[in-house]
Amino acid sequence: MQQQISVITLGVGDLSRSRRFYVEGFGWSPVFENHEIIFYQMNGLVLGTWLETALATDMQRKDPVRPGTFALAHNVPTREDVQATIDHLSRFGGKILRVEDEPPHGGFRGYIADPDEHAWEIAWNPAWSIDPNGLVTFSL
Amino acid sequence: MQQQISVITLGVGDLSRSRRFYVEGFGWSPVFENHEIIFYQMNGLVLGTWLETALATDMQRKDPVRPGTFALAHNVPTREDVQATIDHLSRFGGKILRVEDEPPHGGFRGYIADPDEHAWEIAWNPAWSIDPNGLVTFSL
Repeated sequence: MQQQISVITLGVGDLSRSRRFYVEGFGWSPVFENHEIIFYQMNGLVLGTWLETALATDMQRKDPVRPGTFALAHNVPTREDVQATIDHLSRFGGKILRVEDEPPHGGFRGYIADPDEHAWEIAWNPAWSIDPNGLVTFSL
Repeated sequence: MQQQISVITLGVGDLSRSRRFYVEGFGWSPVFENHEIIFYQMNGLVLGTWLETALATDMQRKDPVRPGTFALAHNVPTREDVQATIDHLSRFGGKILRVEDEPPHGGFRGYIADPDEHAWEIAWNPAWSIDPNGLVTFSL
């Protein structure tokens, strides 16, 4: 099967609070929005933020909880961008989990949670290439 | 900022159990693996499966839980592929959450959880294009 993830959907408690973090914090533009869901066209996949009750009903799960045991990452072009991005996001509803430092494998990173506690690693990883369309390629 | 997600990292309790689901179930090939993490090169981003204790330490979070309030989706080429894919994944450690049916917005989908309870929607969505490299474009 194709190695492909088409959508990441995050459950959110308050759509406008989440929108502020992604639109004003990250500076991303929605490709679609209504009263219960916002979609963002990302780098070869789609990010959805959906009211958590609707997502739970759709998954037929009674028990999803936050914060989940997962993290998303957004890579930035320079080492200096790491803490600057985290600080910026913190002004739009993000809660800092880990201030920037150097991970064992190199580069630089910190973590911030979105207003619904979903974790984002903000990373500078010079080993990984990112093309102008945001397509990210793993490398050591 | 670039509308870009570089990595999705899922916390896992048992790396070999998770590997079986992704490698034998989905049929995906790791681009890197060691005793605590496996990376898969996906469509413009990277999927990581990392021992949950290591992920929690890295995020500096004491409290991540499962199942989290999020879902990943994998889109398939035909309507018939939806349940066939779910059934196949269920033979490699997946637990079916929702058998296939038609969502309100059209297409066809079901949900299956990976061995660590992370939810995957398996969907046929004829409105969204997927190119040969797996790059997915939102459309109504």
